[in-house]
Amino acid sequence: MRIIDDRTGLEVLTRDECLRLLQTHHIGRVGVVAAHRPLIFPVNYVVDGDTIVFRTDEGMKLFGSTESGYVTAFEIDGTDPVYQAGWSVVVNGRAREVVNPQEIVHLSKLPLRPWAPGEKTHWVRIRPNTITGRRIITLG
Amino acid sequence: MRIIDDRTGLEVLTRDECLRLLQTHHIGRVGVVAAHRPLIFPVNYVVDGDTIVFRTDEGMKLFGSTESGYVTAFEIDGTDPVYQAGWSVVVNGRAREVVNPQEIVHLSKLPLRPWAPGEKTHWVRIRPNTITGRRIITLG
Repeated sequence: MRIIDDRTGLEVLTRDECLRLLQTHHIGRVGVVAAHRPLIFPVNYVVDGDTIVFRTDEGMKLFGSTESGYVTAFEIDGTDPVYQAGWSVVVNGRAREVVNPQEIVHLSKLPLRPWAPGEKTHWVRIRPNTITGRRIITLG
Repeated sequence: MRIIDDRTGLEVLTRDECLRLLQTHHIGRVGVVAAHRPLIFPVNYVVDGDTIVFRTDEGMKLFGSTESGYVTAFEIDGTDPVYQAGWSVVVNGRAREVVNPQEIVHLSKLPLRPWAPGEKTHWVRIRPNTITGRRIITLG
């Protein structure tokens, strides 16, 4: 059974499908608001439980360490040129830098490579508030 | 000659290289701030002169039609798994909905397919303020 959005003609992905896509991919883009401006950067990520985890050099600078965290968007997408099909999954949630040493030990064991070289000493965890996905049957 | 950022170890792409990458790709992600929250969505785009153009159903809702326009981020990226190389280009600039009929006629002739089905009656143009790019020699 597929759910089609009448207004857009897009297939609406279930939360389970979105999670499956998140679990089987490893490059996404993080969107944050810095100085009232949107910023997008690619990251390698891993799903840990029901959260998204990635490493960055920026750490505090971008995400702070407040209890509430920063609201972020996290997006993955893919296309299949042969079938003219595409999909995207967008997570909205709060990002927090991971500072608990035990948690960092746990995260260090996950199959996560940073996108770029450098020390990447900061771990950031996004706890999803909403997860939405859509599939496009034809890109044409 | 390559420019390497000492802090990050990343190759800094020249504006010309960024433009060449923008001109030779056609799927990007737009980041906007809506209700103080970052939002990311994939689009098919085309380069028109020194601007980025895409179509959307959302139109006014996201980008308004004010003279000043909305500040957006626009990102493209790519990876080469074989060489463990990756790159990304980020454009920051103001997005304005195109409302001039002559301009729309011109844009209609460009090789631009909307990402998703639907009427996509709104054309949005991003005029870059800054264009930055970086290349990662190894993703590992």
